[in-house]
Amino acid sequence: MFEAHFQTFEEPEGGVALTARLAAFREELLRRKLSGFVIPRADQQQNEYVAPSEERLAWLTGFTGSAGMAAVLNRQAAVFVDGRYTLQAAKQVDGKAWSVEPLVDPPPETWLEKHLVAGDRLGFDPWLHTSAAAERLAAACARAGAELVAVQSNPLDAVWTERPAPPLGPVAIHGTQFAGETAADKLGRIRGEVAKLGADAVVLSDSHAVAWTFNIRGADVSHTPLPLSYALVPREGRPTVFIDHRKLSNSARDHLEQNADVREPDALTPHLTELAQCGGSIALDSATAADALKRLIAGAGGKVIRGSDPVALLKAVKNATEIEGTRNAHARDAVALARFLAWVDREAPSGALTEIDAVEALETFRRDTGALKDVSFPTIAGTGPNGAIVHYRVTRKTNRRIGSGDLLLIDSGAQYQDGTTDVTRTIAIGEPTGEMRDRFTRVLRGHIAIARATFPDGTTGAQIDTLARQFLWQAGIDFEHGTGHGVGSYLSVHEGPARISKLGTTPLKRGMILSNEPGYYKADAFGIRIENLELVVAAEIAGAEKPMNGFETLTLAPIDRRLIDLKMMSGPELAWLNDYHARVRREVRPHLDEATKLWLDAATEPLA
Amino acid sequence: MFEAHFQTFEEPEGGVALTARLAAFREELLRRKLSGFVIPRADQQQNEYVAPSEERLAWLTGFTGSAGMAAVLNRQAAVFVDGRYTLQAAKQVDGKAWSVEPLVDPPPETWLEKHLVAGDRLGFDPWLHTSAAAERLAAACARAGAELVAVQSNPLDAVWTERPAPPLGPVAIHGTQFAGETAADKLGRIRGEVAKLGADAVVLSDSHAVAWTFNIRGADVSHTPLPLSYALVPREGRPTVFIDHRKLSNSARDHLEQNADVREPDALTPHLTELAQCGGSIALDSATAADALKRLIAGAGGKVIRGSDPVALLKAVKNATEIEGTRNAHARDAVALARFLAWVDREAPSGALTEIDAVEALETFRRDTGALKDVSFPTIAGTGPNGAIVHYRVTRKTNRRIGSGDLLLIDSGAQYQDGTTDVTRTIAIGEPTGEMRDRFTRVLRGHIAIARATFPDGTTGAQIDTLARQFLWQAGIDFEHGTGHGVGSYLSVHEGPARISKLGTTPLKRGMILSNEPGYYKADAFGIRIENLELVVAAEIAGAEKPMNGFETLTLAPIDRRLIDLKMMSGPELAWLNDYHARVRREVRPHLDEATKLWLDAATEPLA
Repeated sequence: MFEAHFQTFEEPEGGVALTARLAAFREELLRRKLSGFVIPRADQQQNEYVAPSEERLAWLTGFTGSAGMAAVLNRQAAVFVDGRYTLQAAKQVDGKAWSVEPLVDPPPETWLEKHLVAGDRLGFDPWLHTSAAAERLAAACARAGAELVAVQSNPLDAVWTERPAPPLGPVAIHGTQFAGETAADKLGRIRGEVAKLGADAVVLSDSHAVAWTFNIRGADVSHTPLPLSYALVPREGRPTVFIDHRKLSNSARDHLEQNADVREPDALTPHLTELAQCGGSIALDSATAADALKRLIAGAGGKVIRGSDPVALLKAVKNATEIEGTRNAHARDAVALARFLAWVDREAPSGALTEIDAVEALETFRRDTGALKDVSFPTIAGTGPNGAIVHYRVTRKTNRRIGSGDLLLIDSGAQYQDGTTDVTRTIAIGEPTGEMRDRFTRVLRGHIAIARATFPDGTTGAQIDTLARQFLWQAGIDFEHGTGHGVGSYLSVHEGPARISKLGTTPLKRGMILSNEPGYYKADAFGIRIENLELVVAAEIAGAEKPMNGFETLTLAPIDRRLIDLKMMSGPELAWLNDYHARVRREVRPHLDEATKLWLDAATEPLA
Repeated sequence: MFEAHFQTFEEPEGGVALTARLAAFREELLRRKLSGFVIPRADQQQNEYVAPSEERLAWLTGFTGSAGMAAVLNRQAAVFVDGRYTLQAAKQVDGKAWSVEPLVDPPPETWLEKHLVAGDRLGFDPWLHTSAAAERLAAACARAGAELVAVQSNPLDAVWTERPAPPLGPVAIHGTQFAGETAADKLGRIRGEVAKLGADAVVLSDSHAVAWTFNIRGADVSHTPLPLSYALVPREGRPTVFIDHRKLSNSARDHLEQNADVREPDALTPHLTELAQCGGSIALDSATAADALKRLIAGAGGKVIRGSDPVALLKAVKNATEIEGTRNAHARDAVALARFLAWVDREAPSGALTEIDAVEALETFRRDTGALKDVSFPTIAGTGPNGAIVHYRVTRKTNRRIGSGDLLLIDSGAQYQDGTTDVTRTIAIGEPTGEMRDRFTRVLRGHIAIARATFPDGTTGAQIDTLARQFLWQAGIDFEHGTGHGVGSYLSVHEGPARISKLGTTPLKRGMILSNEPGYYKADAFGIRIENLELVVAAEIAGAEKPMNGFETLTLAPIDRRLIDLKMMSGPELAWLNDYHARVRREVRPHLDEATKLWLDAATEPLA
């Protein structure tokens, strides 16, 4: 009945005999007179999801996590992973060939500094590291008396037989009925930013920025409609888009050529070189631009201006059309969510369901809307102890039956052409414990504190993050992730630059979409998270002395009333919840079948 | 009956004929082939209160504010002040000779860049600017094609006839009964920090750091018991204290010489030069070290390590003796505060009192404790519209009668040998308006949110700042200052590095003392602020999953119950207030006269 098209449940492979690969790679390094090499889990643009052709780290080491790095020296080799992947890495890599080391604290540079010896030549591919990362590597080499060497071609690619071809997902036009602003108008605003930077041109090294600017979408990586590409936008004159011609239909090409020249990706290097040779000042995005771009420009005599991609902030502030689109996308998603939540309540208590069943059912309900393009990330469905693993992905091996007394945490999202969704609900199967209800209520109160917050224009995400944590802190508990991230408009579900986190220094502007997702995780027991997307809007307050903002909640799905300890809720908090449920009922009910209507009526009944 | 010893009410002088001074200064610049000069309101250590001998800005321009700068060019001259001093500066400086310009946004560098011409030589005294400030000046000069020139001697001092002598306040030993740790033990900890920095020595360029390290206090500036001095602490070997011998009694000298060599201030330069010539790495404090020190060390071949003064963090964390001392100081201060608040309630409604009366009475009640060394800053007593001026200082000219229907905001503090206090209360005279009660209650709820907060060890002040603002934001209002600052132990009432502010990136550690002082200011109408000092302590929470901290309130004074709108208070907030008042009654009442006891009983009556 249900099946998943956009997500697999296969255990990442491991333990395959990769010894020969490492040996061949070491031989290649020897041939190139390199004492070692670093292999990040990264493509040329630091994308969250990378194409199979860029999975160098997995091919060489067996480790398939979404973040990490490897370093191969003559006698040692290490795989660096963060806390969530320590166990997985230990299983996937060959412990005789590799040691598993921390990725964050201390960073890989500490390990390199310790194991490099004076005179060593450590190679790296400057297309796969940002300049900041390359500088950290260079400093570690310097401290060890070694040299960091940027290679012209990647030695791993030389030994990677059967490397998949780069993706050639077709490019689609993202019409102004969705984008709300023409590429020409966007380019006008970008040129203004380029002028403010004092630059002659900006390189859009982030495919999301290219997609937004030129109103195109693609299909090169999973879950994000990215057309892998670059663009160069000069302060004056015609921009250039660098993209493989095989991705472009005639109409897509015509669309691009209205505002830009279209060139093959290979043309980026000579094009930038030429500009740099004329002494041009070229702005690069610190977060995504490959170190190779900086070297190219500086090497040809140009001036590099490093900073934030000016498109990131423009893209984060949604226009009226995008806002209308996301409201429609959320209304559509709400129907699938209601059907899903009703189905869980009906089927789960008997013990009939597993985590994979939940993932498949939710995707099926979303496909039933007729508008689903993809899930916006692999659904997290964790029950019991699996719910406490923050980045859990169910596989056939970890798949757990949803039992009575369990909580089911389900974090999922959809890509629709008019908007991207991301929602988490935690569902009580059978009777929850008092501890579960206490924790859930604290998380809910934090969620409501964000949803109800009003704050002066210019306030950053860092300034409101604590509102989500205060009730957990009162019990001596916390959650070890940010409270919220930006969300794109039929683009990445994790979008900068704003976020709600102690590190969120970008002011929250009207039109930004952010997640609001406090949680609590009791290791080996259960996980709780409540997530809605929120739109930053003007807050109308009588007598206000300055412009104030607040949030409009976009996500429309009941929050499990069985998990709320009413005694702990304040009057205004309860009023918010009842208002929210009344709105969900009013807006979603007309689009439901009769059985789901009945379920929704019960699930949104006011509490007092 | 009452009088102020530690504070004057004279209007800062202005309009005096300073034309001759500016002309003489310009002649001196010409003689030295300088096209201009910058004069900051600063001494060699960037102190908050400076000695009369350092009041160059006031002598030259007439402007007496506590922050500012002047720039004198051939044809133009400007005084740069921040928003709170714009009106005062316009009154004090001669508008024909000087223009009044912003100090912050844009900074003076913008003005300099505009008015300097290519080839100009702008002089500055490197002893009066930090290196960061000097670098900003140099960048502005470079953009204008001008040159920044560090002078050997200050040209203003050459024309400042009758310049006061530097202060020679006697040095007192701050015994371990107050300090709680010997200088030898402190030096051991500082040496550990010097080693961590990879330095051979650290320059203590902040007299507060010298005072803390060597357990001495002084009398060189107002309101802070500072002995102006420097010290050099090597990683190994004996430290040196640089201080004028005329400040030292035999016993003070003996005390210092137990742990250090004692030299005249003039000896710092040759001493540092010698160390630098041996290739030493010397740590300087970015916030207080004069640019001259960096030039000296670098010029002699030494290596400069710029960073945070390692003493600042050590000093901020109070030990058990200092904590016991501050509790005693606050208990003592509470008696004076109760007498003062009772006196205001008795005398003010008839219209008999002025702001100056309030300042004099409060100081008198504090002197009556027999332990008052100084006020910790000039008392702010603002009634009616004066209360809305955040940095208001009453003068004979602005002195306002306290009338019925007014609020009186009084922010004051004391220096006792065992601790420094800082407290603000807002008092209703007669019947307050509904708006006053609404605003006061919002400020109080924010104050209580900080006082009651529990937060994980490692949390910064930035993370909790919003708790103090949330109820104001709900009404579209805010206050334009930080929520709290660090407080010293018989040292500066404004002490770094921790603070409760969106800029407070230092983790709050157990033993730190911070103010908790949200407010609200309605221009031309009234001002509200409620301030207690809080000690960071471990929070004992059953079932806590990580080390948690909270605050112990140190200040003991009733909060005006007549200004509270009970309907707006939550149950836990009211419980906090009643508990606090019960504690004030319990701890302060035994030390009061009968009349004040009666007043205190009424002022601390529980609310419900």
